[in-house]
Amino acid sequence: MSVTRHEPRKILSCVVEGGGLVYTAGITAEDFSLGVTDQTAQVLAEIDRLLALAGTDKSKILSATIWVPDIRLRDGMNVAWNQWTGGENLPARACIEAKLAGPDILVEIAVVAVK
Amino acid sequence: MSVTRHEPRKILSCVVEGGGLVYTAGITAEDFSLGVTDQTAQVLAEIDRLLALAGTDKSKILSATIWVPDIRLRDGMNVAWNQWTGGENLPARACIEAKLAGPDILVEIAVVAVK
Amino acid sequence: MSVTRHEPRKILSCVVEGGGLVYTAGITAEDFSLGVTDQTAQVLAEIDRLLALAGTDKSKILSATIWVPDIRLRDGMNVAWNQWTGGENLPARACIEAKLAGPDILVEIAVVAVK
Repeated sequence: MSVTRHEPRKILSCVVEGGGLVYTAGITAEDFSLGVTDQTAQVLAEIDRLLALAGTDKSKILSATIWVPDIRLRDGMNVAWNQWTGGENLPARACIEAKLAGPDILVEIAVVAVK
Repeated sequence: MSVTRHEPRKILSCVVEGGGLVYTAGITAEDFSLGVTDQTAQVLAEIDRLLALAGTDKSKILSATIWVPDIRLRDGMNVAWNQWTGGENLPARACIEAKLAGPDILVEIAVVAVK
Repeated sequence: MSVTRHEPRKILSCVVEGGGLVYTAGITAEDFSLGVTDQTAQVLAEIDRLLALAGTDKSKILSATIWVPDIRLRDGMNVAWNQWTGGENLPARACIEAKLAGPDILVEIAVVAVK
């Protein structure tokens, strides 16, 4: 099966397609000065953009993995998450605490979708 | 490709099918007063139930991700894991330490299976 | 769909195929006395070996999840990662901090590929 990669960076591709599946990298916000809700909104907008590059969209997400550096940030993350999902087409999801690449990064999300 | 979601909650679906794959959410026990072995047994029973909803079962699991809030809980988790697998049809697996949604949650497991 | 497992151990299989996908377990180095760059090189060589068992190779990886016990180890891990990828066929990737199965384990990597 062939693999298609979009927006390769130095160490990873931002979104990769193969076998009918679409994987995003772990996505973080552009502006780390924001709070967790606004960072999450930025992450989800970027995920929308990456899924579109691969010819799919958020209604086709199978699973999302969400990392927050303090589990108490989950509520603030969920505010943006719920606005984004609109309560529809909800993926399977795991949200766990993990220190991320820098201290100001308040959320990182990776998703798997079908095309 | 179409996506089928089972048991949608407020923020996630408990199990999602698409492209021939089945993803569970990160599943935790019902009773957080239990020790890690008993919590794991509850989680695995729930995964059995969710896989059945999606028309598959534990013999079709490709991969499992297991989070424990203290890596020393791994041995107690494995007691229930080994009883559940019976040493057969063993998936790929990663077990890592991560603080979970509450201090009494001693294990969380997500699996990917084929149908 | 059928599932094929390679190198089953007591609790997991090292690499599992199904539905056109190949999942490795979370792989750690053989020699935990090494530094993070050398541990990563060992992990990636083992991933090469496991992917070959399943009839695929690193050019077909969709996504990689990398755990390091201290996020500051990421740079040393990336030295081996970049040498291994050669900057080509870059997968989607998430790298997060997590305490691993023992204090000397400096990196763990799991990948998903197509055949």
